[in-house]
This record gives sequence, structure tokens and C-alpha cells, in this order.
Amino acid sequence: MARNVLFIMADQFRFDHMGCAGHPFLKTPNLDRLAARGVRFSNAYVQSGICGPSRMSYYTGRYVSSHGATHNRVPLSLGEVTLGWHLRESGRRLVLAGKTHVLPDAHGMRRLALDGASELAVLLREGWFELVDRHDGHHGEPDSNYAHWLRAQGYDSRDPWTDYVISVTDENGAVQSGWHMRNARYAARIKAEHSETAYTTDRALGFIAEQGAAPWVLHLSYVKPHWPYIAPAPYHAMYSPNQCLPVKRHPDEWNAHPVQRAFMDEEVAQSFQMQDCIDTVRPAYQGLIAELDHHLGRVFDALDAADLWKDTLVIFCADHGDYLGDHWLGEKELFHDCVQKVPFIVADPEGARGVADPRLVEAVDVVPTILDALGLPAAPHVVEGRSLLGLTRGTATAWRDAAFSELDWTFRGARRRLGLPVGNHHAWMVRDGRYKYIHWSSGMRPQLFDLEADPDEFHDLGDDPALAGTRAAMKEKLLAWFTALKRRTTVTFEEAEMRTDSHKKAGVFLGQW
Amino acid sequence: MARNVLFIMADQFRFDHMGCAGHPFLKTPNLDRLAARGVRFSNAYVQSGICGPSRMSYYTGRYVSSHGATHNRVPLSLGEVTLGWHLRESGRRLVLAGKTHVLPDAHGMRRLALDGASELAVLLREGWFELVDRHDGHHGEPDSNYAHWLRAQGYDSRDPWTDYVISVTDENGAVQSGWHMRNARYAARIKAEHSETAYTTDRALGFIAEQGAAPWVLHLSYVKPHWPYIAPAPYHAMYSPNQCLPVKRHPDEWNAHPVQRAFMDEEVAQSFQMQDCIDTVRPAYQGLIAELDHHLGRVFDALDAADLWKDTLVIFCADHGDYLGDHWLGEKELFHDCVQKVPFIVADPEGARGVADPRLVEAVDVVPTILDALGLPAAPHVVEGRSLLGLTRGTATAWRDAAFSELDWTFRGARRRLGLPVGNHHAWMVRDGRYKYIHWSSGMRPQLFDLEADPDEFHDLGDDPALAGTRAAMKEKLLAWFTALKRRTTVTFEEAEMRTDSHKKAGVFLGQW
Repeated sequence: MARNVLFIMADQFRFDHMGCAGHPFLKTPNLDRLAARGVRFSNAYVQSGICGPSRMSYYTGRYVSSHGATHNRVPLSLGEVTLGWHLRESGRRLVLAGKTHVLPDAHGMRRLALDGASELAVLLREGWFELVDRHDGHHGEPDSNYAHWLRAQGYDSRDPWTDYVISVTDENGAVQSGWHMRNARYAARIKAEHSETAYTTDRALGFIAEQGAAPWVLHLSYVKPHWPYIAPAPYHAMYSPNQCLPVKRHPDEWNAHPVQRAFMDEEVAQSFQMQDCIDTVRPAYQGLIAELDHHLGRVFDALDAADLWKDTLVIFCADHGDYLGDHWLGEKELFHDCVQKVPFIVADPEGARGVADPRLVEAVDVVPTILDALGLPAAPHVVEGRSLLGLTRGTATAWRDAAFSELDWTFRGARRRLGLPVGNHHAWMVRDGRYKYIHWSSGMRPQLFDLEADPDEFHDLGDDPALAGTRAAMKEKLLAWFTALKRRTTVTFEEAEMRTDSHKKAGVFLGQW
Repeated sequence: MARNVLFIMADQFRFDHMGCAGHPFLKTPNLDRLAARGVRFSNAYVQSGICGPSRMSYYTGRYVSSHGATHNRVPLSLGEVTLGWHLRESGRRLVLAGKTHVLPDAHGMRRLALDGASELAVLLREGWFELVDRHDGHHGEPDSNYAHWLRAQGYDSRDPWTDYVISVTDENGAVQSGWHMRNARYAARIKAEHSETAYTTDRALGFIAEQGAAPWVLHLSYVKPHWPYIAPAPYHAMYSPNQCLPVKRHPDEWNAHPVQRAFMDEEVAQSFQMQDCIDTVRPAYQGLIAELDHHLGRVFDALDAADLWKDTLVIFCADHGDYLGDHWLGEKELFHDCVQKVPFIVADPEGARGVADPRLVEAVDVVPTILDALGLPAAPHVVEGRSLLGLTRGTATAWRDAAFSELDWTFRGARRRLGLPVGNHHAWMVRDGRYKYIHWSSGMRPQLFDLEADPDEFHDLGDDPALAGTRAAMKEKLLAWFTALKRRTTVTFEEAEMRTDSHKKAGVFLGQW
């Protein structure tokens, strides 16, 4: 039984950007080291291709249709149960260093009069994480611990994140903003030891050291390699464009599905349609990963030094990937593998080592894996994922045959450009052993990709008459998935068993002649 | 605009047991009087054929898969928003006289430290109903207001409901329990003016009188004609077996779908398979309806006297029907019309009068109808039903083409007899203009009834090869329904609109070259 859990997440980290996953140039010796200690899942899918909903699936073990936090700007309902509460129920704590993207359920907290400053209200606003430190890293947070710390290191600014962490100095000595991707070629205005990645690692190492022999569960959650794509020296210049993966895009994609086509008109996609943008951002993105890998090495060294590997479950994953110009797109959200498939390594002290496992793994599997590793109740009345320990230990006899992801594109300009009012703008991905099927709400035609014949997902077979049977079969899998969602969340399985056929015990003698 | 709402519900009241619905013997002059004042919806479906989930759909405007209270023994999650909260948001109250079947979400209240005796905790335990009186009427409640009142009327017992209300005196002078359906032929041991129906009506009339000119929203919720089927004199003997509807059952049904077949082995079904049981219970059931109708007359007289019809929306409905021996079954839960179709009359002061409307209406339509009538915000981010005022006022241009209902049969002995552990034992009904399709989870075969050729639903076409296309089309409707459920419940549509494409306003300048 594991005593500790180190649940590491990176943000916007593509599955194909690790040495152990076959990247020909990018060096990730520490992720490779972790992979050698455990199982690397080479077909791991997130439940949504954007931070908020993907993380809420990681933190609840539930699909987006069940937890309801469909987009970054949609809070998780107070009715949902998270990993932090499951642990608390068993007298354990869930501690955070880094990013969660948790938003308070403001309507719910007002309805339940929980909008105060009580310890409970604070926990609820944090989704039951207790904070070593929180840093979400996608806009200026002048009052964050990180900002205070940066000022203490001499970065004199009301908003040192904006002015130093994501700013650069160009060849003319002028300060430029990292919000402009053209500036990703320059180094950040901070030393490497003051970056977000370094800072978050320091907080985590401090926490682990403080615990001593006490058991812990730590979510170490990095904001990188997520934009702004500004790396400190020397990482900003570590790779050249010809050491990056070739961009995957095809002229046929200009005739893509209407929603994909509308996303191709978003500003970020237009930027990444320029070769110059690809050649500027991809090397910096690789540099940010190299930096992350360096700091993971510090964490793993600490586990070595304290002899913690033997009873610590370590998971490394990401909340989603990044288009980086593939498919003429930037950012994320849609259903191509470069967004939906993520790096995913599980070092289970009692499991296999140095193995790559191609079975379909999902973000929802993390909560049940952690509960299983710690020997805690599995909560099958709410948790929709499956423990991965059956795979790491070779005891699973059957496994899922499809992975699912979801999108709510209400919040994108694309929705307005297609002339649609706020409402139901959802899509579902079903990815089985061979096909990827995408079901769009509101009567839009589906998409279908044959991943065997077309692993780059260039050729949408969503209206190919020859594949009507395949689409029907994929739709059948989607319907079966909907019917299997866990909707009866307010009673446990034990309670349900106890309450079965028990009306007479409750004084209700119905049906007697 | 309506000032008041009188939302009346009966429990276990079959759609075909009203004079205005064509019953050849049963007299319901007051329901007919209400129908003459409004629109009688002749194809009104509940969202589940059992009290708890059906009522939670009535009280939230949401399907069972969305609100999650899948059975009587499953509380509504604290994350769900009910009519009472919607009204409270607008400074109005929702008042209850009678039954709700609301259960506290004990796990949620513990998680959110809401398990105290605060006003809020009390409201949450009642699903945001403020009580004039609550009486659920399916087991002894010795400390209820009704029990105290009965004792004050001279019924001397610790549990006067059990000893008087549902007890009888047989021809030998012996006291017998109404839990035995054979005793439905005898009168209750109370006077008619002390019955549950009389008592609840008195409470409602008292509330309405007290309000004077102040506006109100009252849920008047009767526990009858629900079992125990014991009526006070003279109602117990008002009808004879030959004045009841003929039982609808067919020998072919002994080869029914495995779940239907397993329900045919429940004790209540076995009782109702005896003609004697049918001949004993059906007259009493009609008597209970006649009694209910009488008391509705008192309510409607009060509306007349206070001239309230002109600005009071009145809705009459039921939470589900009753097999009463049809299909060799007793009780409810499964998907035949005698359970799923309910009486449903809407008297809209600004709407049509004396009209029968065959369009498909659902229980989830009540919340949006009430909000619409009162001119309050429609909450389309959570509410899944549609306002019926478009039908009563003839302004609706399009309407739904299918109604949906759900079942969680985990809690029935049938599940154990089929050898299944607690888990996902759900079914969904899709009823369109012609067909009723029933989709069972766990790979069980579907059911299909052609309501045109077989209005009595005797012949299950669920495995008829000739109808594979029809089943596929119905399954398509079910999938479309799943995709349209409202899962993004923590932000309003206005908030979603405001947060669309607004990242730059939030200081996030992603995607700029």
C-alpha cells in the first residue's frame, strides 16, 4: 500500500513532446527516468481539451457531462465530490502546489449561504485543496504569493509576472510583452531559478521535506508549457526550428467541418498559420518542457534522497495538449490527438517498470487509482474512472474499448461567427481502437477519422456514405456511455443495497393481499 | 400576469380516471369543472413512474438523468436548484400543504456542514418548500401535525394514521389493517371530514384565506389515491366492480421482457393477478378519487368566492399512475401508459378554456410554466422543460415530438431475483407520436410498442426484425435527448454570453502574433 501520492500535472503538454515518447530532438531525461520506474500509457486521453473541464475530471474522476464544469469559465457545482473530499473522509489531506483552475460555485455558495470566510468556504472555493501555494499563471496576479516572492527577489513591480516573468528584452534593449508570440524567441526577464516552474518546484520540495515521515498526497501542478510561451535563459534558445516536430496540416482541412473551420478563423489559429509563428513558438515550447524536466529531476532526486519511491505512487500527466499550428489551428479544445492525448506515466511501487502500455487510459482514472493505491473506499456511486493499478500490476482481465472527451464551445468567438445564440453547443468524441467519431449537438454533421489509415487525422469521413455503418456503431458506443454515467450520486452502493426491497422494514407493507 | 399559483398534485392517479377523460362511471365533477376553465392535456407524461424522481422533476423542471434523484430512496443533490429557490430569488415563497417525498441530501449536508437546525438547513431538508403542513402518507408518522390533529379529534392512539386512517372494521367488528388490500372493501375508521384529503384541503384553504390580498404560490399535494387504498365512508362503497375500467392484460405478456417479467413476480403484482384483488381495490381507488374531487370542489369554491381565478394559475397533475392489475402488474415504475401518463389540467387565466390538447406534455414543464405565468426569469441554463403558456395561449409555433421517462430499478427485489449486483440498472422511455421505445442499460434488449396498432401495449416489438429501422430512429431520439440535457448549471445564459470571447477583457491576450 502506498503511503504517499505525488500527482504531477503539466499544462498544455503534448503527448509527443517527450524523449521516451519518441521525440527525435527534445531531451526529457527526467520524464524518461520516471517512465523507467513505471508504466507509460501511450494512449491516454483527457475528458476535455481545455484546462477547466479536463482538470475537474481529473479531480472528480467523473466525465464532464456528469460534473458539469464544461468550460474554463464554468465552476464545478457544490454538489460534486472531489478527490480532496474523498481523502478528507478518510482522514487524509489533499495539498496543492501550483495550478488547479478551480473556480468557486458562486451561485451555489450564495444559495447555501456559504459565501463567508470560514475554513469550509475557503476549502469549497478551492475545490477541497489545501494550499501550499496556488498559482494559475494565465493572467497577472499582483497579490499572489509568487508575486510577493518575486518582489523579494528584486523584481520591482506591482505586477512582476506581467513585467518580468512573461516579458522579454529585444535586441534593441526594448521591453516587449510575451503575450505577443513573436517575442517567444527572447528570454524571459527573470533568472531561471525565479521562473514559475522553479518557484512551484521549490514550494513542493519544501512541503515534502516538512512532512518528514508523515504521509502526504500532493498535487504538484505546473502552469507550463502553457502560454505565454516565454522561457528563461538558457531554455529559450535551447532548440532551433529544425529540431521541432514537423507541422501536421493538410490543404483539405480548409474544407473542414463548420466548427473546425470556424476555429481556423480564431486569432490564435491565424497566428499559427504563419510559418514564422510555428518556427518561433515551437522551440520556446520545447525549451519550457526542457525546463520542466529539469525541475522534475530535482523532485525525483528528493524522492531518491528520502527513499520515498518505495511507498509513493507517482503520476505524471497533463490537462491537454496544444495545436501549435497542426491542422491550421492554435491553442486547444477540438478533438485531434495533439490536444486530447497527453503524456501519462504511473510509477506504482508495486507495479511494472519501464513498460509502455497502449491501452486506452482516461483522466477520470486518476482519482480511483489514487484511492486504490492508498487503500481507501472506491466510491463507485460517483467515480466513473477505473483504477490503473490493474494495468500496472497486470491483474486487469478486461479494459475499456473506447475513450471519451467532450467540448462546450459556447464561450468561443466561433460560436458567434456561426450566428448561434448561447445554448447547447456541445460535442463528444468517441475514440476506439481504430476510429475517432465526433458527435456534434444541434444537428450538425458528425466527424469520423480512421486512425489506422489516417493517423494524422487529415481526412474527415463524417459524411462518407461507405462508413454509415461505422458511424452507427460509434454512435451506439456513445449512447451506451451516456446510459452508464453515474447519476445516482447521493447514496452509496452500500446504502442502495441496504435499501433494496426493504420497504417492510421501513413500515411500508404495500402489495399484500 | 398571474399573481397566484395553485399547483395541485395527486399521488398515483391514473390519467383515465376522470370523467372529463372519458371514464364511463367515475364522476369527477370538480376536475371536469377545472378542465372547463382551462386546457386538459391528454398526453401528459411524467419523467419517472415513481413518486420521488417524478416529483423531483416536477420541482426542478429537470429530467431524472439531470437531477439524479433516481428513486424514492435517493435524495436530490444540494447542487440542484428547485422551484422554491427560483421563487425565493425573486422575493416569492413556495408553500407546501401535503406531500413532497423530498429527502435531505445527508451526505451533501454533512460535506457542507449544513446539518444543523438553522432556517437554511430546514429549508434544504424540505427542498426549499416552506411548510403550511407536510404529510407524506406512506407510513405511520406519530409526531406529524396530522397525527396531533387526529388525536385532538378524538382518535386516541400513539399512531392514529395506522390505527384509524388506514384501518377498517370488518363485518365481525374486528379491526383490520388497510395494508392488506383485501380490506379495501371496508370503510376507514375515521369520518370523511378527518381523512388525509380533507385535512390537507383544510390546511390549504386556511393558508389561502390568511393570504388575503397578498400573492401566493401554493403546492397543494394530496397523498391519495395512493395506497393504502382505504377510503372513508361513503366513498369506500361508492362504486362496484362493474363500474370500473376493464383490466388490460394479455396472455402474451407472460413472455415479456426479462425485467417486466421479474416485476410480475413482485408481491404486489401477484396480488393484483387475482381478480378478487382487482375487484376489491379498483372500486376503493375510484372512491378515493371521488373524495379527492369533492375536496377540490371546496378549493375551487374558495377561488370563486374570493374572485381569484382571474389572476391565479391553477395546475392539476399527478406524480404517476397505478397498474391496478393491468399487464399482470401492481404498483408502478415500468413504462406502460397507465403509469406514465397522468391527468394534467392547466387553467391559465389568459389561456383557452374547455379544450383538450393532445400534444406531448411533461412534468418538467411545470416549473417553466409557473415562472412564465409569474413573469419571473426562466433560468434556461438549468430548466429543461418548456412553458405550457405557449400552448394554452396558442402562441407556440413548434413543440416537442417525443416525451421521455426514466427508471432506476436498483432498489427492487426484481434486481436481486435477476442475480444483478447494485450498479447501473436504468431504463429510458422514448414516446413519440406513434411508438414507445424502451432502452435498457446493461445490454438488455429494448422494448417497442406501436401505440397506433396496439394502444393497450400488449405486443412488444423490441426484437421484431422488421422494425429495426424504427428502433434505430427511436434510439437516435434518445441520443439527441441525452446530448441536449442541461449540464452547465453553474452559470446563467447571460453570464455565458458575457464570458464569450472575452479573454482580453480578463487580461488574457492569448494568440496574438
